[in-house]
Amino acid sequence: MPTIFFYGPELEREKKRELIDSFTRSASKATGIAPSAFVVYLLPTSPEEVGVGGKLLTDRQRDGK
Amino acid sequence: MPTIFFYGPELEREKKRELIDSFTRSASKATGIAPSAFVVYLLPTSPEEVGVGGKLLTDRQRDGK
Amino acid sequence: MPTIFFYGPELEREKKRELIDSFTRSASKATGIAPSAFVVYLLPTSPEEVGVGGKLLTDRQRDGK
Amino acid sequence: MPTIFFYGPELEREKKRELIDSFTRSASKATGIAPSAFVVYLLPTSPEEVGVGGKLLTDRQRDGK
Amino acid sequence: MPTIFFYGPELEREKKRELIDSFTRSASKATGIAPSAFVVYLLPTSPEEVGVGGKLLTDRQRDGK
Amino acid sequence: MPTIFFYGPELEREKKRELIDSFTRSASKATGIAPSAFVVYLLPTSPEEVGVGGKLLTDRQRDGK
Repeated sequence: MPTIFFYGPELEREKKRELIDSFTRSASKATGIAPSAFVVYLLPTSPEEVGVGGKLLTDRQRDGK
Repeated sequence: MPTIFFYGPELEREKKRELIDSFTRSASKATGIAPSAFVVYLLPTSPEEVGVGGKLLTDRQRDGK
Repeated sequence: MPTIFFYGPELEREKKRELIDSFTRSASKATGIAPSAFVVYLLPTSPEEVGVGGKLLTDRQRDGK
Repeated sequence: MPTIFFYGPELEREKKRELIDSFTRSASKATGIAPSAFVVYLLPTSPEEVGVGGKLLTDRQRDGK
Repeated sequence: MPTIFFYGPELEREKKRELIDSFTRSASKATGIAPSAFVVYLLPTSPEEVGVGGKLLTDRQRDGK
Repeated sequence: MPTIFFYGPELEREKKRELIDSFTRSASKATGIAPSAFVVYLLPTSPEEVGVGGKLLTDRQRDGK
């Protein structure tokens, strides 16, 4: 029962479906484990809660980086 | 200072108390470490953010799986 | 398909069995979800990789804390 | 800079390459973020450290489940 | 591309900036890797979702512990 | 009891001490919580288990990226 966590931007429902489907198929193919055994967690992170290169993502985006 | 993470459905407060208590007692017993050293994080996950068997949990629940 | 992560000391196999069993039963009872849906990861952490109160756990243990 | 964690069986190097490539392409497509921004962690978990349905995975595999 | 996760109380924006900056500088210094390669996730946890010593943090705070 | 996870390269013991100390002091200052309440996990990740920009880190390092 492998498990996949995705920390990234909030997605629309249709994009979530695509991502869960493609992650599961890729991982099933690489491991030889049936798709039914996979669990995927999509954990949306706000630019207010992420730092990249020492800067808050909100600030980087405002500054056009 | 062991740490336990629970990714699962949102729970009522009384259920949270029970889960934190039982997780901590079980882990204290298995490790021989005092209950005071344990931290438990209950991380509620929405069916909109979880995929099982390649499908969004919301869709599976709607389809009666 | 809820998921539980345990970051703590390495355990003997029999203790692992007990911990997986008790975590799963507790979480099943609190959530009303069948035990078969739960996955537990026991992630052993060495005292060389843990800090408590700003000190490496190895150093704290040597100093009798 | 989204981040993907995969908890699953140890893989051969070529399978790791495939999985990192396909996870990154899928996530880039779903989010519209450039592939260069993605980090993937493959965290191999031993059947000795995983519980499914309340049983140690090692025991389940031995019993043919 | 190292990654840092912080599970703790919700912070004001200025405190988030300070924490991201100091975590990144500390980790860059210890590893010799450029600050630009680091990602930090600040994951706010409510006292309603944390257990310490077997008790819900909300209850401990109410009881003055 | 906030918790910090660091996924990055294996470090020498003295660097681990520095990192645990500086993470804890930074986080204590930003939150106003005593240093004694913080737990830090240093989770070493091999270049064989990390993907950046869709490539295995081992391969990127060999290619001088």
